Amino acid sequence: KIEKIEWDFEAAEKAGYEHFMLKEIHEQVTAIHDTLAGKISELEGAIYLKELNLSEEEIKKLSRVQILACGTSWHAGLLGKYLFEQLAGIHCDIDICSEYRYRNPVMNEGTLAIAITQSGETADTLAAVREIMSYNCPTLAITNVVGSTITREANSVLYTRAGPEIGVAATKTFSTQLTLLYLLAVKFALVRGKVSPDYVKSFITELRKVPGKIQQVLNQKESIKECAESFARSKSYFFLGRHLNYPIALEGALKLKEISYVHAEGFAAGELKHGPIALLDEGTPVVAIATRGQTYDKMLSNIKEVKARDAFVIAVADSKDTEIAKYADTVLRVPQSDELLAPLLSVVVLQLLAYYTALARDCSIDKPRNLAKSVTVE
Amino acid sequence: KIEKIEWDFEAAEKAGYEHFMLKEIHEQVTAIHDTLAGKISELEGAIYLKELNLSEEEIKKLSRVQILACGTSWHAGLLGKYLFEQLAGIHCDIDICSEYRYRNPVMNEGTLAIAITQSGETADTLAAVREIMSYNCPTLAITNVVGSTITREANSVLYTRAGPEIGVAATKTFSTQLTLLYLLAVKFALVRGKVSPDYVKSFITELRKVPGKIQQVLNQKESIKECAESFARSKSYFFLGRHLNYPIALEGALKLKEISYVHAEGFAAGELKHGPIALLDEGTPVVAIATRGQTYDKMLSNIKEVKARDAFVIAVADSKDTEIAKYADTVLRVPQSDELLAPLLSVVVLQLLAYYTALARDCSIDKPRNLAKSVTVE
Repeated sequence: KIEKIEWDFEAAEKAGYEHFMLKEIHEQVTAIHDTLAGKISELEGAIYLKELNLSEEEIKKLSRVQILACGTSWHAGLLGKYLFEQLAGIHCDIDICSEYRYRNPVMNEGTLAIAITQSGETADTLAAVREIMSYNCPTLAITNVVGSTITREANSVLYTRAGPEIGVAATKTFSTQLTLLYLLAVKFALVRGKVSPDYVKSFITELRKVPGKIQQVLNQKESIKECAESFARSKSYFFLGRHLNYPIALEGALKLKEISYVHAEGFAAGELKHGPIALLDEGTPVVAIATRGQTYDKMLSNIKEVKARDAFVIAVADSKDTEIAKYADTVLRVPQSDELLAPLLSVVVLQLLAYYTALARDCSIDKPRNLAKSVTVE
Repeated sequence: KIEKIEWDFEAAEKAGYEHFMLKEIHEQVTAIHDTLAGKISELEGAIYLKELNLSEEEIKKLSRVQILACGTSWHAGLLGKYLFEQLAGIHCDIDICSEYRYRNPVMNEGTLAIAITQSGETADTLAAVREIMSYNCPTLAITNVVGSTITREANSVLYTRAGPEIGVAATKTFSTQLTLLYLLAVKFALVRGKVSPDYVKSFITELRKVPGKIQQVLNQKESIKECAESFARSKSYFFLGRHLNYPIALEGALKLKEISYVHAEGFAAGELKHGPIALLDEGTPVVAIATRGQTYDKMLSNIKEVKARDAFVIAVADSKDTEIAKYADTVLRVPQSDELLAPLLSVVVLQLLAYYTALARDCSIDKPRNLAKSVTVE
């Protein structure tokens, strides 16, 4: 008797996870590790980006970085902008590709264009890169797909070593894009004499701890699940962040939009009073990213304002923060880390929050309605 | 017998309008006219900004404009950025003030800072101006309030001649801020040899027609009211625009948030496919600003995508556009105008849409919950 074995290829690929997205959220531990492999030396305080076709002389002469991206990659780029300015002292602009193409930008010599696209096939990003190459700017692509169109057009390519991402909502490609932007900004800062090799050493030490800390966040997923379930029927979600946490707030809101079909919106927390706070109602869930850093006190003020309107505050905060629980209704914790690197941890909390909200709402998580994995039309 | 006359000072001030906001929407006709008064010569093709303490030499040498603003003023500034780059060929950055202060910006010589604030007292804007003055950048304030704090700190002041704005949701101060930004950008373009005096003449001719065209929009308010009423119970609104209409989409969404407490969000239309389109459901109202211009065809594509998801498209389009009605469910018309100036008309449609939505929802229009007219705390 011949026995027919029912073998579900997709289930096998999911390695026991219910969805690709959940698997990919977990894979961030190895994906960041793999993206760093061969690029850092803790001993020497050095960052090696041999794929970068820019000499140290050229890096020193850069007057501007122009980042081009769409969607989730744009959020990574916005954080990159803050890093290039703060660490490397290079003026940095970022544009949504579909806007960049039509707005008659003013370009000047000494501008490095960085295009960020998971698929390497995003139509608007390719068009923006072609546009910027007409100004003779050197171009660097950050992508996940070897041999994709953008890798054949850009002058340099840095790969996120995230492996294939099947879930339509980007997770591990986002955090590995960020990883490369951290390396680039710190490398540029070193070459331009803005930081010392000792700074780079300690930065690398901290960066190498990130995958282990992400594992700690993943270990607490049950508490994030509980939180998500208790708000799964909310109509609107707000996400607030300042400075480096602002792009993470935008990204957290986008994840929720994509897979849970909940109207979530991210804000620079300081903008709340200039209009959006009118929307807050009793019990509206407000996710406030309040890891320790230079804007921590300002975030606390924003949390108090939001509480005064009876909204429900879910704070993302450091494990050792004993103050935050006085103001927030629920606190989701991330391990203590360098202020610069905390976004890599906070975003995992928000990815899990979106995932479990979608699960509770019984949404099609890996293939949300209306969305394609790579947007190859304009 | 002494007769007591019941005299409601506030009602008198409203001059027959039900709310200050509606009155102020109507006052845009005169406010723009007053803001232009004494600043333009159609005959000579000249723009006079004598309050601007910058010589022609200094204008020629500008390498960058840095705009600083919050909320509605930030939307005006975003449109300003497009104008300065496109018309005057000056690289322009714009920052949310509460972010600018903490992100360690890279400043260089030859940067003009333009701070936009209705009240002249916005705490974050004042702090950002003080920060940028520490880099020795000349500063120009655009404000509505004579003698406000910012007028004492900035090197130059241009006033929007909008008169007092009582409604918390800014309307006439927004369109007069835009008016000044148009004048500045065209003036800079002329001084820098990017446009000819003939161009300036024809631009002034078009600009002078704007108040009359706004009156035409106001005359159609019943159709906008009907449209608003039919969607007044929607949970989410989307606003889409590209290029110069992108800031207007953001502003339209903010008005609705502020006074109707509806979760409305504005998007650069090209970003829709990168996530937000997942939210679209049968009947979701999507306001698409599709006046004629270089991105018109791209907007039509976006409208088709949105229609394919069964959303309900409310297009804002030119009076002579016969094509749009094939794709959109409802078309709200604005008079034909110069592509650059169309935002001044479209925004009036969106202000009325927000007003009548709030009215249908019985909201406190002039004093929305949680909001203050000027945000004097950080």
